[in-house]
Amino acid sequence: MIDFPEIQDLVKPNNSKIIMLVVDGLGGLYHPDYGKTELEYANIPEIDNLAKQSDCGLTLPVLPGITPGSGPGHLSLFGYDPIKYTIGRGILEAIGISLNLNSSDVAARGNLCTIDHQTGLIIDRRAGRINSEKAKSIINQLDGLKYKNIKIEVHHVREHRFVLLLKGDGLENNITGTDPEIEGKVTLKSIANDSRSALTAECINYFNEQIKTILADRDTANMALLRGFSKIPDYPNISDKYKMKCAAIAAYPMYKGLAKLIGMSILDSGNSFQSEIETLKTNYDKFDFFFLHYKPADAAGEDGDFKQKVKSLEYLNGVLNQVLSLKPDTFILAGDHSTPSVMASHSWHPVPFLINSKLTYGSRIEEFTENQCRNGSIGNIKATQLMLLALAHSDRLNKFGP
Amino acid sequence: MIDFPEIQDLVKPNNSKIIMLVVDGLGGLYHPDYGKTELEYANIPEIDNLAKQSDCGLTLPVLPGITPGSGPGHLSLFGYDPIKYTIGRGILEAIGISLNLNSSDVAARGNLCTIDHQTGLIIDRRAGRINSEKAKSIINQLDGLKYKNIKIEVHHVREHRFVLLLKGDGLENNITGTDPEIEGKVTLKSIANDSRSALTAECINYFNEQIKTILADRDTANMALLRGFSKIPDYPNISDKYKMKCAAIAAYPMYKGLAKLIGMSILDSGNSFQSEIETLKTNYDKFDFFFLHYKPADAAGEDGDFKQKVKSLEYLNGVLNQVLSLKPDTFILAGDHSTPSVMASHSWHPVPFLINSKLTYGSRIEEFTENQCRNGSIGNIKATQLMLLALAHSDRLNKFGP
Repeated sequence: MIDFPEIQDLVKPNNSKIIMLVVDGLGGLYHPDYGKTELEYANIPEIDNLAKQSDCGLTLPVLPGITPGSGPGHLSLFGYDPIKYTIGRGILEAIGISLNLNSSDVAARGNLCTIDHQTGLIIDRRAGRINSEKAKSIINQLDGLKYKNIKIEVHHVREHRFVLLLKGDGLENNITGTDPEIEGKVTLKSIANDSRSALTAECINYFNEQIKTILADRDTANMALLRGFSKIPDYPNISDKYKMKCAAIAAYPMYKGLAKLIGMSILDSGNSFQSEIETLKTNYDKFDFFFLHYKPADAAGEDGDFKQKVKSLEYLNGVLNQVLSLKPDTFILAGDHSTPSVMASHSWHPVPFLINSKLTYGSRIEEFTENQCRNGSIGNIKATQLMLLALAHSDRLNKFGP
Repeated sequence: MIDFPEIQDLVKPNNSKIIMLVVDGLGGLYHPDYGKTELEYANIPEIDNLAKQSDCGLTLPVLPGITPGSGPGHLSLFGYDPIKYTIGRGILEAIGISLNLNSSDVAARGNLCTIDHQTGLIIDRRAGRINSEKAKSIINQLDGLKYKNIKIEVHHVREHRFVLLLKGDGLENNITGTDPEIEGKVTLKSIANDSRSALTAECINYFNEQIKTILADRDTANMALLRGFSKIPDYPNISDKYKMKCAAIAAYPMYKGLAKLIGMSILDSGNSFQSEIETLKTNYDKFDFFFLHYKPADAAGEDGDFKQKVKSLEYLNGVLNQVLSLKPDTFILAGDHSTPSVMASHSWHPVPFLINSKLTYGSRIEEFTENQCRNGSIGNIKATQLMLLALAHSDRLNKFGP
C-alpha cells in the first residue's frame, strides 16, 4: 500500500489525535509580477511561527515532473501510492454526491456544453459555467433512459457538471470518452477498447444521440461531454491499515468521495471552512485522525489569481488558531499538489509541509515557504511517506525489526 | 541487494582500507532541558575537525517515520535493504552467542519472567532484570528436554534473556509467540500459522508446560516468554558482493551475530571499545573493510540519559585519533539509527554521517551535528547507499555503462 509493505504490522493504536490540514493547491511558484511565490508574499505570521516550531519539508506528490489531479494528490498524502491506486474521475464524482454504487456500475463525469447545432462543433465546453439551478433542470431531462438492460442515470453535481451512472449487467469501463477536450471540434463517438466493454460503448453512443434530440431546441447548454469512465476500485481501508478511526471534513463532493473510497467516515461539514472547523470541534472526541480540507487556495491558483491565492492563505492563517486550540498530538499542514497562479493550473512542484508534535522542536526556518521548507529538518520526501511521519510522531508505530 | 542491482559487476578489488565506525544510536534530538541535541551539546573537537574535512550528510535507515531495530539499522549501513532482508530476533541472538546453527533449526528469543502462580498473570516481563549468574542457573534447568524427535536447547544470553533453540527435522518458524508483550496477561499458547509449522507450535506448547512445572517452586523468575521464532536467512555474502575481505569488531553479541549473517569475519574484540581498537590494530593488515561498533551512545540514549550520551560521544572523540592513526583510505563515521535521549528509545530520525578520503575536501560545516550534516556536501541519502560511497571513495567501483 505504501513504501513500507506491511505497515499494519508495525502500527499500534493509542489515544492520540492527528489533524492533517490539506490546503488544496498549497504550493506556488515565483510570479514575475510580484517577485515572490504566493506563500512568500502572504502575511501569515501564525503559520510562520508554527513552522519555526515544526519539522518542515517538501512532499513530492507523484514523481518529479508529474502533475497530479486531486485524486492522486490526496491518495498520496494518505499513504496510497497513486501510481498503483489509480482512480476514475466518474467514480470519484459519483461517490462525492453520495450515489449508491454497486461494483458492477460504470460512472462517468459529464459536462453540459454548448454546440453549434448546424456544424456540431463545440463552442463552449462548460456551457458558460451555467448556474446550478438551471443546469439541474436541464440535466433532469436526460435522466431515466434505458438501453437494452442498462439503466442510464444522470445526477447533477454543480454548475455544468453531472455524473452519468450506468447500472446493469455486463458493463465494463474500458471505453473512450466523448469529450474531445478542446473547443471547435465535434463530440466523439465512444469506442470500446476491449470486447467486454462493447455494450458500455454502445450504450454511451445511444445516450449521446438522445441528448442531442432532447436538447435540440436549446441554444446553449444543448449537449454533453463524457469522460472518466470508471468502476469502484477496491482499496485497502485506511482505518484498518493505520488502526485508527479516520474522518474526512471537506466541503466539496470530490474530496468526500475520495475519502470514502479508502474508508474514512465522511462528516457533514457544511459549505465553508468555518463550518468545517465547527464540524471538527463537534466530532473531535469521536475519531483519531482528521483529514481537514481547505479548498480556496487551489481555486484561486486555478483562476490564475495571485492576489486571491495570497488572500486565501491569509484567511487560513487567521482561523488556524481555532484548529490548533484543539491541541492535537500531531498537526500536519500539507498540500495535495501545487497550484501556482502563474500557471493557472495544478503543477508537479513539490509542496511545502509542516508537522508539529511534542517531538518537533523547530526547523530553524523563518517562514513557511517553498524555498525554506526545502531546507527544513525533513527536506524532500515522497508524499506517500507523510503518513509514516504522522504515525511516528503520534507514537503509533512500533520499532521495525529486532 | 542494494539500490543498484548488480553492484558486484562494478566492483573492482584493490588494496585500499575502509573503516566504518558505527556509533550505535548516534543521532539525537533537541532536548528541552539542554536546548540542544546531544551532538550539539558535546565537546567533540576532533570529530568536528574531521567533519570539516569530510563529506557529510544524513542517512535514512529505512523510511521516514520508520524506527529500525539494530538488525535493520545495521543491514542498511552494509547495503542490504532491510525491508527485503528481514531478520528474526531469535536467530540474531543465537548467532550472537555463537551457537552452532543448521539451516533446519528454529530459534526464539526468551525472557525469564515472573508470574503469579495462582492467576498465571505476568507480573514482571523481565523478572526484575535478574542478574546474569542467577538467571543462568535457572535457565540451565530448562535445557535438554525433548519433544518427539525435537531437541530443546536453552542458552543463556545475559540477565533475563536466553535463546531457545529447537533442533530436529520438520521444524518451521511460522508460529505465534507466547509473549503477550504486556504485563497483567497470561502467557499465550503458540499457534501454527501454516500446517508445516504445526510440529514447532506443539513443541513450544509442550515446553511451556514444562517450564511452569520445573520452576513451580520459585516466587520470581518462574516462567518464560518466547518470541521472534526464526530460521537462518540466506543472505548474499558481503565479501563476495563487494570483493573485499570484511571483518566485524564488536563487543556485543547481537552485532557480531548480524555481521556473521552476511559473511563478515568476526574478530575477537573483548568487551570494551579500547579492546576493539586494539583488535582493529592487530588485524589491520588482514582485511579490507572493518565494521567497528561503538555501543555506549545507544545505551545512554535508551536510558534517557542526555548527559551520559554526551559523555559517550566525548569519550569517542578522545579515542578517535587511535583509529585515524591507521590512516585508512576511507573512514566513515555513521550510525545505525538515532536514539534521542529525550525519547529514551530508538527513533526514525535520519542519522548524521561523515566520509573522509583523499577525495573529500570538506563539507563547509563547522560542527558534526544533525542540523549541519543535513546541509553537508552529501545531504540526505538512504543508509543502503552509504556503502556505494565507501566503495567509490576507495576507488573500488568501475564506471557504470559505456
